[in-house]
Amino acid sequence: MQPLLPPQIRVVIDEFTKLPGIGHKTAERLTFYLLRSSKTDPMSLSRALQELKEGITYCEACQMVSVDVQCPICRDQSRDHALILVAEEPLDVVAFEKSGYKGAYHVLHGVLSPIDGMGPEQLKLKELMARCKTGAITELIIATDPDVEGEATATYLHRELAKFVPKITRLAHGLPSGAEIEFADQVTLREAVAGRREL
Amino acid sequence: MQPLLPPQIRVVIDEFTKLPGIGHKTAERLTFYLLRSSKTDPMSLSRALQELKEGITYCEACQMVSVDVQCPICRDQSRDHALILVAEEPLDVVAFEKSGYKGAYHVLHGVLSPIDGMGPEQLKLKELMARCKTGAITELIIATDPDVEGEATATYLHRELAKFVPKITRLAHGLPSGAEIEFADQVTLREAVAGRREL
Repeated sequence: MQPLLPPQIRVVIDEFTKLPGIGHKTAERLTFYLLRSSKTDPMSLSRALQELKEGITYCEACQMVSVDVQCPICRDQSRDHALILVAEEPLDVVAFEKSGYKGAYHVLHGVLSPIDGMGPEQLKLKELMARCKTGAITELIIATDPDVEGEATATYLHRELAKFVPKITRLAHGLPSGAEIEFADQVTLREAVAGRREL
Repeated sequence: MQPLLPPQIRVVIDEFTKLPGIGHKTAERLTFYLLRSSKTDPMSLSRALQELKEGITYCEACQMVSVDVQCPICRDQSRDHALILVAEEPLDVVAFEKSGYKGAYHVLHGVLSPIDGMGPEQLKLKELMARCKTGAITELIIATDPDVEGEATATYLHRELAKFVPKITRLAHGLPSGAEIEFADQVTLREAVAGRREL
């Protein structure tokens, strides 16, 4: 017997399944939603995807995704451009922007991870090095994720850049806002004690 | 300050957010995955979506999504076409096919739900009625979901079709395979006891 679902439906299910966190069941549900819903048209998502990469470049300074040579943050003269927060990904910048951070950024577009073939050359490190070498940077906040790769990248950055920047810091580790101590893991609690501050 | 993310990225995030079960964070993650990944190309998902609805029709007999006048199931002469399982959606048919069911289907494309504007006219009921009136149907298995709308639809179908079909059944309610009785809800346990079978 030929497959039950028409080929054009199976192709969309397959394409959705390639996305992270989307399993076969979810892909089926999304596809049939697009097929039936009067609210969402598969054509408008199709067109949006078609134009996704068009004209997207990286800010020449901070390497954030941008449509201009410089991103809005790097062009904003009200910000502190001597302070650079080093982020793994563009979405991390989006998150820090919501938190009210008012310095500049540098997006690495990845972390050091030899197993995944990510060495220093695969990251936007040359560009960060160049910014540090100008001598205009007073502090580098290393904001990679608190996991193995993130810590390794932070150590590497510190070793490579310490001679060009007077101060290199790492994000504080400790209890997240709203956490319940009862459910916090050992490492977090150990770090929260180690990093305790006087009231 | 202008928005941080380029417009073509924001449009894709917005389109993803319209899909069921996809929140803003997930939409951001999917969009940046498509933007960066070498494995997935936004263009191939775009093309797939563009063709999604092209040539899709409903099987003239069972109303399953199909590219032909009749779907592969309705054309399959090895199946029992006197037995019709009435399903809410095409994906329910996909699920029953995996379970090894060998009769025919009828897809309602919805359930009765007055709040959502779904009355009998919005369902593929006329077509089901026509099939039942031929007198060739020996049993109708009503396989709507075991929720309020599904039960209401089952009751309605039974009332309307009992005079044309000798036997109308409903899927068994009880403990799902692999369930732990300790965690089963009251209604399920009550139905499992009520529907008990002799060993």
